[in-house]
Amino acid sequence: MSSTNRQNRQQAESFLSSVSGRYFPNSTREFIQGSQPDIHVPFRRIHLSETLHQPTPGLKPPPNLPVDVYDTSSVYGDPNSVVDVNTGLKPLRSGWIRERTKNTDKNRVTQLAYARRGIVTPEMEFIALRENMGREHLYNPVTPEFVRDEVAQGRAIIPANVNHPESEPMIIGRNFLVKVNANIGNSSVSSSIEEEVEKLIWATRWGADTVMDLSTGRNIHQTREWILRNSPVPIGTVPIYQALERVNGIAEDLTWPVFKDVLLEQAEQGVDYFTIHAGVLHDFIELTANRVTGIVSRGGSIMAKWCMAHRQESFLYEHFRDICEICAKYDVSLSLGDGLRPGSIADANDDAQFAELRVLGELTQIAWEYDVQVMIEGPGHVPMHKIQENMDEQLKHCHEAPFYTLGPLTTDIAPGYDHITSGIGAAMIGAFGCAMLCYVTPKEHLGLPNKEDVKQGLIAYKIAAHAADLAKGHPGAQARDDAMSKARFEFRWEDQFNLALDPVTARNYHDETLPQESNKTAQFCSMCGPKFCSMKISHEVRQYSGHLGNERIDVTFKDATADEVGAES
Amino acid sequence: MSSTNRQNRQQAESFLSSVSGRYFPNSTREFIQGSQPDIHVPFRRIHLSETLHQPTPGLKPPPNLPVDVYDTSSVYGDPNSVVDVNTGLKPLRSGWIRERTKNTDKNRVTQLAYARRGIVTPEMEFIALRENMGREHLYNPVTPEFVRDEVAQGRAIIPANVNHPESEPMIIGRNFLVKVNANIGNSSVSSSIEEEVEKLIWATRWGADTVMDLSTGRNIHQTREWILRNSPVPIGTVPIYQALERVNGIAEDLTWPVFKDVLLEQAEQGVDYFTIHAGVLHDFIELTANRVTGIVSRGGSIMAKWCMAHRQESFLYEHFRDICEICAKYDVSLSLGDGLRPGSIADANDDAQFAELRVLGELTQIAWEYDVQVMIEGPGHVPMHKIQENMDEQLKHCHEAPFYTLGPLTTDIAPGYDHITSGIGAAMIGAFGCAMLCYVTPKEHLGLPNKEDVKQGLIAYKIAAHAADLAKGHPGAQARDDAMSKARFEFRWEDQFNLALDPVTARNYHDETLPQESNKTAQFCSMCGPKFCSMKISHEVRQYSGHLGNERIDVTFKDATADEVGAES
Repeated sequence: MSSTNRQNRQQAESFLSSVSGRYFPNSTREFIQGSQPDIHVPFRRIHLSETLHQPTPGLKPPPNLPVDVYDTSSVYGDPNSVVDVNTGLKPLRSGWIRERTKNTDKNRVTQLAYARRGIVTPEMEFIALRENMGREHLYNPVTPEFVRDEVAQGRAIIPANVNHPESEPMIIGRNFLVKVNANIGNSSVSSSIEEEVEKLIWATRWGADTVMDLSTGRNIHQTREWILRNSPVPIGTVPIYQALERVNGIAEDLTWPVFKDVLLEQAEQGVDYFTIHAGVLHDFIELTANRVTGIVSRGGSIMAKWCMAHRQESFLYEHFRDICEICAKYDVSLSLGDGLRPGSIADANDDAQFAELRVLGELTQIAWEYDVQVMIEGPGHVPMHKIQENMDEQLKHCHEAPFYTLGPLTTDIAPGYDHITSGIGAAMIGAFGCAMLCYVTPKEHLGLPNKEDVKQGLIAYKIAAHAADLAKGHPGAQARDDAMSKARFEFRWEDQFNLALDPVTARNYHDETLPQESNKTAQFCSMCGPKFCSMKISHEVRQYSGHLGNERIDVTFKDATADEVGAES
Repeated sequence: MSSTNRQNRQQAESFLSSVSGRYFPNSTREFIQGSQPDIHVPFRRIHLSETLHQPTPGLKPPPNLPVDVYDTSSVYGDPNSVVDVNTGLKPLRSGWIRERTKNTDKNRVTQLAYARRGIVTPEMEFIALRENMGREHLYNPVTPEFVRDEVAQGRAIIPANVNHPESEPMIIGRNFLVKVNANIGNSSVSSSIEEEVEKLIWATRWGADTVMDLSTGRNIHQTREWILRNSPVPIGTVPIYQALERVNGIAEDLTWPVFKDVLLEQAEQGVDYFTIHAGVLHDFIELTANRVTGIVSRGGSIMAKWCMAHRQESFLYEHFRDICEICAKYDVSLSLGDGLRPGSIADANDDAQFAELRVLGELTQIAWEYDVQVMIEGPGHVPMHKIQENMDEQLKHCHEAPFYTLGPLTTDIAPGYDHITSGIGAAMIGAFGCAMLCYVTPKEHLGLPNKEDVKQGLIAYKIAAHAADLAKGHPGAQARDDAMSKARFEFRWEDQFNLALDPVTARNYHDETLPQESNKTAQFCSMCGPKFCSMKISHEVRQYSGHLGNERIDVTFKDATADEVGAES
């Protein structure tokens, strides 16, 4: 082990030993209790301070209720938990899986199979509680039966391999909260369990709902094992990558038996969803001939190369029913990859893309014959005015199976900022009904993302997903916005920081110009200063309205504006 | 002068002496020549390298034509210019203004007045050439007559005070490129001409089409003078800020005579557009009583306080015709401020906001009586599903006057990342027809932006504006995307960096993992490595299609994949 590697490992160990709530001040770990003791749904509660400003003198303002937020970080976000990555997480779903497989056909253990039989699984109840986040009293709540029905209709999936009992149930569907996926991959040369698990924890800290492990190289099996045994979120993979490793990187040497072995190995380990590029048909390849950027999906290009070399139809397409049989046995969900997605604005919504989409629709119906859960992957690079068509075509041709898109990027001209070019498209397609957004980091098109890039990508995508939830009118999504805005109007600076997606950055930005503790309750910030703070003046306007002729209040304002403080002084 | 101040000044001087093309490698400054010698439209030309990959062996691929981009940085972006901020810029419009005011009524010197009389001003011709950016041959170009007609209809404005002849003509209207405004403000305690001009140059370097000078404090007149004499872009102000300084920050002490003096002073200096919050009427204030965030516009809250204190109608509203007379005399455009814009998701599209919008529509028609150019300011905080209504209502009630919005922010929960929350809304409203986007920096709600924040805000907004241009189908907007994507597919890394909005960052991100010069032509990057590079494989797929049986090509691929390079090795 080189000194750099040792250093990396030590850093990772130190990171793990420090995983706690410190990134989220004034938050606690809480649980919602379901109908049985082991349905115990974790969330994060952000506690708020009192309103100091009194709208009616002498009358104490009502308390500011805590804000509960969906949280995927599991024990890693719980200050009271001790993390031991060598032991792995508690297999919380083991009992549920054992119980229901006792009496059923073991070849169809999928959530879809149960849903179709009218069974509400503990996973479904867990999900209903999780999506409501304790706000059941405010509106029509998500019920376990609703979860079941959406799964039964194929409109939502619960990626939950029976061999990944450590995962906390979550759902991907357009009638639920919009989800975010983060990709991670190992650094291949050398790696420790601590380093691999650190990436996973880092992604869930910033809100990843699922994680795709795109590792390659020699230690691919071991790396995946470390990740699965320590992952509270579903893990997705692209099995063709491992298959290609097995044939030494020669796409033409891929065969169905090699691929099948990989699927079995990964399904047995507990992978929750597979990206399979089975819609890249031999005859579609020529549709990409005049594209500006050809085929930009890795899986898609590998399969295109195989088809061209052998002048044969894709073995993934030919063996799709065999794939479904494997998935049904473990409840691996299928994520049907868009191998011909556009890689540039010029190629958006072209014949190649939509020809493949229609095949993915056919494959969806085949998967459903096997009770296999399915979602559909989408682009890519799409200008804003062509985004809605993507969603409409997907719903139509893929029979309302959930859509899972990469961005889309709304322009090609900003490498280094593609979390933003794609965040715009992601928010829009989320609002149109896309169920999960695959994040894009600032390094897209340029290189491997580092930790900071992963964080920046996730925050941009949590913004996009939340903006989409608001736009879709998801019950309760606005509670956090309202709490933030009330804190803002009442100059509760600490609460503003704590309610933010990234409290540390919000606080640091504020403190750059006004570091003093006293300014954490000041009725202004350095942006406008006290004299020009509209919110401060707005309060005074309200006081005028409520207490006309109250000279004392007016004098208070005059005094305050005479003080010039901070950056304005 | 303190040592910190001296240091700031020295840094600014050193910045000024280094203003050159170094941020934009392989770019040159070029000009389009109009019908008379002094119509000389500057732009930036990005030169590209040759395609190395030969689609047909033996046949040289066609050259990659340079990409011309709209550029607002004027001489500051021209490596051949010598910048002397004490002299100021060349007053390029002086002759045009002198010529046409010789024979016309001097009280109506606005572009709108000329347009209505059927006159094509040199500014209009300049703008037509600038909007086309040399791509006239590709599609129906913007003609000077079209510019004139859009201005005559009130659908577009050309902010161009006759006393700011240094400005390079530009247009704000929904049938033109979407524009971006950046706010700058002085640091008030002390400042030098170099420091103030540096902020301006920095903003135009990253693409600001107009700059609002929101300076306050004692040196407000001098600061504005420095900015105007050195600004190639239109300068906007919010005159109520200076008026408030004159009455020592006591909103109640504001009077029309005080305000009028400020308007005259600023118009005489050359301010190109005034934000005036004349739509905040006395009776609307109670409509904000139950808002979560009250009144969040500074100008709006000042006027609300004044109205409440005096129990009188706003003097801005009462004296609106007097304001128009001043504007007509200097060709100051009016930017009718949305003093009651929503400051939170909860308050979006409420009665207060739309009541004010209707008054802004009335005021628009009054301004047009005086041949004064008008645009309308818009929100603020608006969830995605309520953005379209903002644009529709604005067009309807304000008679198609251009819309100029702040964001809108699509969620309240991400302080520290509001350039992203608002970049989403800005791109959308731009696509719906908003003519200019006022940028938001990462420091919004938290503090004063520094240089890096200004840059981050501008880049997010150039992305939003460009994404909107693509969505609106603006002729030629896609040329840069296509050039970027072609460079990407051909592994011309240097061209990718040079075509980027921010070449330095793009290059640095790439070089973090692959710094060697040899990798600037490598057919992969560290993101996927050589084995999994879809674009590389895609080329091989094309070679299969074109040259079936060409074993040499296949062997090349095998060799390349055997090399494991960079992060993947």
